[in-house]
Amino acid sequence: MIRIALDAMGGDRAPRAIVEGAAWAAQEYDCQIVLVGKERNIKKFLDKTDYPKDRITVKHAQETIKMGEPAAASVRRKKNSSISVGIDLLKTKEVDVFISAGNTGAVVCAAILKLRTLPGIERAGIGIVFPALKQSYIMIDAGANIDATPLHLLQYGVMGSCYCEYILGRHNPSIGLLNIGQEESKGTEIIKEARELYEKTKLNFIGNVEARDVYSGKVDVVVCDGFIGNVVLKVSESLAEASSAFLKKELTRRLLPKIGAVLSLPAYRAIRKKIDSSETGGAPLLGVDGRVIIAHGASNAKAIKNAVRIAIGYVKQKLNQHIIEELKKLNV
Amino acid sequence: MIRIALDAMGGDRAPRAIVEGAAWAAQEYDCQIVLVGKERNIKKFLDKTDYPKDRITVKHAQETIKMGEPAAASVRRKKNSSISVGIDLLKTKEVDVFISAGNTGAVVCAAILKLRTLPGIERAGIGIVFPALKQSYIMIDAGANIDATPLHLLQYGVMGSCYCEYILGRHNPSIGLLNIGQEESKGTEIIKEARELYEKTKLNFIGNVEARDVYSGKVDVVVCDGFIGNVVLKVSESLAEASSAFLKKELTRRLLPKIGAVLSLPAYRAIRKKIDSSETGGAPLLGVDGRVIIAHGASNAKAIKNAVRIAIGYVKQKLNQHIIEELKKLNV
Repeated sequence: MIRIALDAMGGDRAPRAIVEGAAWAAQEYDCQIVLVGKERNIKKFLDKTDYPKDRITVKHAQETIKMGEPAAASVRRKKNSSISVGIDLLKTKEVDVFISAGNTGAVVCAAILKLRTLPGIERAGIGIVFPALKQSYIMIDAGANIDATPLHLLQYGVMGSCYCEYILGRHNPSIGLLNIGQEESKGTEIIKEARELYEKTKLNFIGNVEARDVYSGKVDVVVCDGFIGNVVLKVSESLAEASSAFLKKELTRRLLPKIGAVLSLPAYRAIRKKIDSSETGGAPLLGVDGRVIIAHGASNAKAIKNAVRIAIGYVKQKLNQHIIEELKKLNV
Repeated sequence: MIRIALDAMGGDRAPRAIVEGAAWAAQEYDCQIVLVGKERNIKKFLDKTDYPKDRITVKHAQETIKMGEPAAASVRRKKNSSISVGIDLLKTKEVDVFISAGNTGAVVCAAILKLRTLPGIERAGIGIVFPALKQSYIMIDAGANIDATPLHLLQYGVMGSCYCEYILGRHNPSIGLLNIGQEESKGTEIIKEARELYEKTKLNFIGNVEARDVYSGKVDVVVCDGFIGNVVLKVSESLAEASSAFLKKELTRRLLPKIGAVLSLPAYRAIRKKIDSSETGGAPLLGVDGRVIIAHGASNAKAIKNAVRIAIGYVKQKLNQHIIEELKKLNV
């Protein structure tokens, strides 16, 4: 049975939403969950939920790294944080995967310090599956590192491509570099050099893609540095929220649109489900020697349940082995 | 009367949409429009529209810079492009403002070459007015330059702040640096240094803002480099398009949601109007010694009409004088 460590203290709604999400997941999926964090806090919420008793255990961790804390410093200082203890469980192979909705920087930092990167990989990257018109795709890096060298951008492409092939089941995924124009002449020096590197490989590289194509789904893997990736992600969330707020205001202003809104509800739900980050669940931290899933800081119980689902799919595939093999073929 | 030069050859739908937009604007607003481009092409469409004959003239320009052409090279090579001829009209004060929906890089390049930047300004930046929940705001740079030094980021803030104050009429506008976190410790070295520069000034600087706040409208001026600004803009467009396509599909799938959609139509129209770039019309290229408005490449006639409206408001204020004065107060 797949064993999952879940950071019970990470995220805006922790520990409650995490504990409830774990209970929900343990009912729905065939897995063993270890909740990591302050035992007393966790048990308080766990006792209120209905869950299969043999499937959830608690691993005490005395400290908590808060969302705004500086990543590297807090990981070094708080040796017994739920993040560090969870990653330790992964390192000692007591679990197969670690999930956290906590301080992303701290998770990335602890994972790299304790698990190290895969042989040949210089930098870890967060790969996030985005919904799009044609089909979903993976964007990497969504925020593990704020900058990237051309080689990092190449390695992100390899990792994203492997994820796309082995986890999303897409054959020979296409890779694009996120840029401000499709032309070769456009973009920063780093992007131009990354393009040259890609062209030396046998990867299915299609060149530059523009941010205007991000939701069209014309490419399987979108590669960018973590700053840009984070901006893409957060702007999308911001716009989705603002749009529904605008729409709600407009719809409830007069009677007919209001009735219309009620009748259209199933459609709205379907669309929200498509964009809602709690449906996506979590994003893999690719490139580290161990499986780490980063869930959204605002995760509710459903998001955590879905992160467990993602984690289970992730564990079933030997993704890291594929990444190592693909890296060897690169020839750059 | 305000005199406007309009690049009739620029944009995906040129010259037709530009000519039609000019005719529409000349009917609605008190202005004189010079359509710049291939005379025969322009007249072909102009003759089909109904417009006040004394308000639109044509200035022939033999060459056209296409959307994908490399900016600097094409400006140098095509001395008689509609962009260059239009900017020349501005330089010789035959018009008060120049509008183009053409190759953005070429417009920026020609403007800087021919008009020069304002005294004290190192780089021009595109300022774009974004819709937001609380109130609209201006983002600068939306894509004039792909990178920026800390000083450029500071000067963008001054220009955006002046635009916000004198064109949007907002008192003492707040300025934020677009970053991946609100904490001082976050971001690239360039952003950290820009933050330090801002803190030495008397500008109403509120620190870092995150992309997740981009549509909340919690700040009046959002400062970023042109690569990031372009990504914010294009991702927003991409998501807005994808969302309406998703929604349309869902809404028309079954009968009740379909009826609901019809009843809610006015609300959708209101929301689309809020996000639609053809309502925004155009974005000023700030920091050059002359008034240049950059319209969206996909501009239709309505977008061009609205760009003319923006241009008229822009001409009425002595914005550049204010920018020069504010720069002197900076003390950095």
